[in-house]
Amino acid sequence: LQSRLPAVGTTVFTLMSALATESGAVNLGQGFPDFACDPRLLDAVDAAMRAGHNQYAPMTGLAPLREAIAAKAAALYGHAYDANSEITVTAGATQGIITAILCAVHPGDDVIVIEPCYDSYQPAIVLAGGVPVPVAMRVDAAGYSVPWDAVARAVTPNTRMIVVNTPHNPTGTILRQADLDALADIVAGTDILILSDEVYEHMVYDGQPHASVSRHPVLAERAFVVSSFGKTYHVTGWKVGYVAAPASLMAEFRKVHQYNVFSVNTPMQAGLADFMRDPAPWRDLPAFYQRKRDLFRAGLAGTRFTLLPADGTYFQCVRYDGISDLSESEFAQWLTREVKVAAIPVSAFYSRPTESGIVRFCFAKKDETLALALERLAKV
Amino acid sequence: LQSRLPAVGTTVFTLMSALATESGAVNLGQGFPDFACDPRLLDAVDAAMRAGHNQYAPMTGLAPLREAIAAKAAALYGHAYDANSEITVTAGATQGIITAILCAVHPGDDVIVIEPCYDSYQPAIVLAGGVPVPVAMRVDAAGYSVPWDAVARAVTPNTRMIVVNTPHNPTGTILRQADLDALADIVAGTDILILSDEVYEHMVYDGQPHASVSRHPVLAERAFVVSSFGKTYHVTGWKVGYVAAPASLMAEFRKVHQYNVFSVNTPMQAGLADFMRDPAPWRDLPAFYQRKRDLFRAGLAGTRFTLLPADGTYFQCVRYDGISDLSESEFAQWLTREVKVAAIPVSAFYSRPTESGIVRFCFAKKDETLALALERLAKV
Ligand SMILES: CSCCC(=O)C(=O)O
Ligand SMILES: CSCCC(=O)C(=O)O
Repeated sequence: LQSRLPAVGTTVFTLMSALATESGAVNLGQGFPDFACDPRLLDAVDAAMRAGHNQYAPMTGLAPLREAIAAKAAALYGHAYDANSEITVTAGATQGIITAILCAVHPGDDVIVIEPCYDSYQPAIVLAGGVPVPVAMRVDAAGYSVPWDAVARAVTPNTRMIVVNTPHNPTGTILRQADLDALADIVAGTDILILSDEVYEHMVYDGQPHASVSRHPVLAERAFVVSSFGKTYHVTGWKVGYVAAPASLMAEFRKVHQYNVFSVNTPMQAGLADFMRDPAPWRDLPAFYQRKRDLFRAGLAGTRFTLLPADGTYFQCVRYDGISDLSESEFAQWLTREVKVAAIPVSAFYSRPTESGIVRFCFAKKDETLALALERLAKV
Repeated sequence: LQSRLPAVGTTVFTLMSALATESGAVNLGQGFPDFACDPRLLDAVDAAMRAGHNQYAPMTGLAPLREAIAAKAAALYGHAYDANSEITVTAGATQGIITAILCAVHPGDDVIVIEPCYDSYQPAIVLAGGVPVPVAMRVDAAGYSVPWDAVARAVTPNTRMIVVNTPHNPTGTILRQADLDALADIVAGTDILILSDEVYEHMVYDGQPHASVSRHPVLAERAFVVSSFGKTYHVTGWKVGYVAAPASLMAEFRKVHQYNVFSVNTPMQAGLADFMRDPAPWRDLPAFYQRKRDLFRAGLAGTRFTLLPADGTYFQCVRYDGISDLSESEFAQWLTREVKVAAIPVSAFYSRPTESGIVRFCFAKKDETLALALERLAKV
């Protein structure tokens, strides 16, 4: 069997989580919380199962869940998505991303991705027959930023889509209004679509707003916006997310969605719909994670790692140039095996060999877990 | 946005379920049970959630679940799949099907499908850049059968895969050993792969064996075999299935799987793994559904519909030529609206207009539901 993805191995998240387990390391690699979700969410799912909500959900998602999503987008981003025709519940954000790509990208189309980026974007583009066109983020003493001039230069008549991600995995940066305006200048008057991965939408710190593409009329009219309940409610293993897009785009999205997964877990959807009636969990999330970020940064300040800014996500990037000459991948493995703290090499988020001497830690962990990791990292 | 699936509308299941609800009809259309699953299965899922199994499962699926699947395949079909390298848990069988197609079918490859067939196969092939090559089943007074001579004639040097399905949706037929041998004769010595949809594996009646492709060495060595927990355990809305394949094929399958959904709902997987320790639920399933089939057939015998054989699945096909000249789609809508019993037109399972005067009923329903439907159908 000739491979359709010859360049692809096992994702770095799987590899590093396995190495962490094998090494008895504190796992700050793969992004997931090590604490429990709200028990009321479990009660709601259990109640849905006992009430018999165990057969196929509607292909588009349960209506109350789509309505709750639309209400939240209206309240937070001032964008009135129609719950019937503009929102679809997906089997996690990753499935939303590949579905948006498969429905929109034709063989031979170019898709611009901004690296480093989440590792599913480019294989999904290749499976659609498209051509990923990577543009590298700038990285300097002040941290990472998107070079919009380079993005503009990468656009050709073949460009079908630009993928953006804010808050940004793995760098922890966020887009700001000026970034959205720069992107809008690039796409205005073209038929270029936007795929906006906003799964960390509720993890933006220091009182800054989340610059959702939904807020920006020029972008929203051409954008698939992806989010995730797993990230917001501490249940990454439930694999429930959603995509919002204008009705004409969503109609094409659903054609693919219905033949990719058909529908999404019914009791989880029912439980989430019920739980979403209380806005407190997502409203309180920035403060919840900002405290963890501050605690983790304060601890790292006493080590030989250099902190990069962390404006969003539950990730903290650090430079290790004062510590080691190893490649990022080797350094992450050494940290996991010897220091017993797992990290993710940022190089894994590039399609071509790119070494910046930076690794990523996940701080979505109990305070004790972070304290134990910091104690170990302080010895490096 | 130019459509990648211009020929595709909303699936017939969505349309007919909506019409059934709107018409107050007994829904014997879309295939799903209207009775509760085993409460022990719900207990097991709830226990997994409360125990904190709510973060990402391994990309391949939870180990105990893969091991239970492998043990069942060994016991039932005598095929020893390696739980680590040859089985992957999917977000329902439909996601397993598209993933097998996306990983194996290259742009320009032909894929033979035998019509009527489940409506996801052909769009999935098109999204992979492949070309669906439909071969029609024979249908006569004795019912449906696969014309292997026509399948053999459809093979070209471009043929990459043949999709088979047993027990067969929508016709309720099953393949027998002679069918597997005929298929093996076609593919032996070629590099043609098999995709075998066996989601109704535990619904084969009258003591006949399920002719799983896993049983047949020539086929198993080149086959992706797909199954579904939703069908077997009366929880179609949970969207958990699995695919078994030789390690070399499974390696390619997983490359796509990890970027399609990454992983599958953790508490459902944990609950299913626990529940599978008792073989009784699947062992008793043929008898459970055979009783319903017999009850439904006995009732239909007193109506003006003509019964086709029903050797497997939870579907019963009937001819209505003694009743109406309407097309299948019009007749199914009329039945739903006027008789208040929803059915699925078999024409919806063909890529080209094909009228056989046959509609499909689902008998995975409470006895009372079947009795009410029969009472209404008797008046036609
Ligand atoms: C889908 S597994 C990895 C989770 C994640 O997004 C990350 O760690 O970057
Ligand atoms: C995935 S929805 C339809 C269920 C089904 O397979 C059928 O009714 O044929």
